[in-house]
Amino acid sequence: MRRPAQHTGRRRPTGRYDRSSAKIGGSGWIWGTHAVLAVLANPARTVHRLLVTEHNVGNPDLSHAHVSAETVHGSALDNAFGSSHQGVAVQAAPLEWPPLDRIMAAAPDDAVILVLDRITDPHNVGAMFRLASAFGASAIIMQTRYTPPLSGATAKVAVGCVETVPACLVTNIADTLKDFQRADWPVTGLAGEAGPELSTVLSGGRPQVIVMGSEDSGLRPRVRDHCDQLARIPMYPGPMCSGAPAGAAESLNVATAAAIALYEVRRLSG
Amino acid sequence: MRRPAQHTGRRRPTGRYDRSSAKIGGSGWIWGTHAVLAVLANPARTVHRLLVTEHNVGNPDLSHAHVSAETVHGSALDNAFGSSHQGVAVQAAPLEWPPLDRIMAAAPDDAVILVLDRITDPHNVGAMFRLASAFGASAIIMQTRYTPPLSGATAKVAVGCVETVPACLVTNIADTLKDFQRADWPVTGLAGEAGPELSTVLSGGRPQVIVMGSEDSGLRPRVRDHCDQLARIPMYPGPMCSGAPAGAAESLNVATAAAIALYEVRRLSG
Repeated sequence: MRRPAQHTGRRRPTGRYDRSSAKIGGSGWIWGTHAVLAVLANPARTVHRLLVTEHNVGNPDLSHAHVSAETVHGSALDNAFGSSHQGVAVQAAPLEWPPLDRIMAAAPDDAVILVLDRITDPHNVGAMFRLASAFGASAIIMQTRYTPPLSGATAKVAVGCVETVPACLVTNIADTLKDFQRADWPVTGLAGEAGPELSTVLSGGRPQVIVMGSEDSGLRPRVRDHCDQLARIPMYPGPMCSGAPAGAAESLNVATAAAIALYEVRRLSG
Repeated sequence: MRRPAQHTGRRRPTGRYDRSSAKIGGSGWIWGTHAVLAVLANPARTVHRLLVTEHNVGNPDLSHAHVSAETVHGSALDNAFGSSHQGVAVQAAPLEWPPLDRIMAAAPDDAVILVLDRITDPHNVGAMFRLASAFGASAIIMQTRYTPPLSGATAKVAVGCVETVPACLVTNIADTLKDFQRADWPVTGLAGEAGPELSTVLSGGRPQVIVMGSEDSGLRPRVRDHCDQLARIPMYPGPMCSGAPAGAAESLNVATAAAIALYEVRRLSG
């Protein structure tokens, strides 16, 4: 006869609490070497748990963690996070960033801020953080309601940059664009159907706001209406491309388009 | 009592061969809506099989296929290809492209060719095809030995552009760079540690060759030695980035770097 669960030896409290039997998965988990090392290096993070596979026990890069590492089987991480964990995962409290007005007040003269209008794919959002870090963007602004968690796949693709690039979650993107305009920060929306090319509308030496729409439907009308200007990245469909379905061969992934926009801002400011 | 499998009615030959019992998976499969439609629209492709889920039966976009579609359960595609198949898959013979000398002979004055030095990740290679199509590159050159199959995940990420961008597989990248130099096509290698910035070394109005190394180890020494010039994309690590692990926050994904290089070539030629 089975004993009720509450009476089994495994559930009886021991001197040392065996955290490895606690649930893995759920909210706030970040995995992958770059992402986890960045969490551990970030004094603003409260880390609840650190899991490592045997392969990573004694890894000196993990020695400055403020929580003791729990050793787990790789299969436990596979089951919880898929195959991209590289043998290490942390569970941490979300970061809290200053509000936008404080970020704007502290921003340099050549600041650039990236606004994501309902970009929901974690890989694209993660890529945006990596880009924002590489090009020194002062913040990424997203809508609270449609943004994926800044952990998990997003943090993995961001290779640690969710620790370093301020994320501002706002309830209304269009209202936030008005705030930029009141501060005389020009707002440029990227739209494939726009007339002017990106390099002709951006200007160096002053703060810039770049707005990216979703890959499927672009900028929403109200967001588009609140941009000072729209611009496109010129495409050059070659003679070889006639067989491709319309659109796919003449478009860029949204994070790629953002990379080119940030590159142009920096080139023109340089 | 169970009858032996070879005697069951389901295995008995019928007038119409039930191909849906044939193996799904293995080489030459391409899945995802954009990728499959591009295969079917490509007269150069020999298509062996076309699988659709019930949801896609009668899809007018598939009506011009030269093979009859086999209806399968979504789970069969999930098992073979993962979750990104969008209910449609084809098995096709590989494409055969003209050799490099013919591509060079037919290339326009402002041709650009992308060379991938041991970039093995299918997502990055697929992204390169999408970029090459968007910026009208005349070909992508890769090393035969280390290139992932131009089907599967590569073709999925390429959203149909493996049909339209010529792929040249060569045994030795460095020797191929010499061929470009003999034809007076300048060869630019991207390297994060290079001195000059990309925008200062590229020149418009003539064919250009851009060489990208692997994300982990960059250009191999012999490939680097055969570039006419090396250039970097300038990074702007902001004050917020001090906590990030060195390297990750100041680097671009290799396909993102290629996008910026192709954008610059086109901007300078324009």
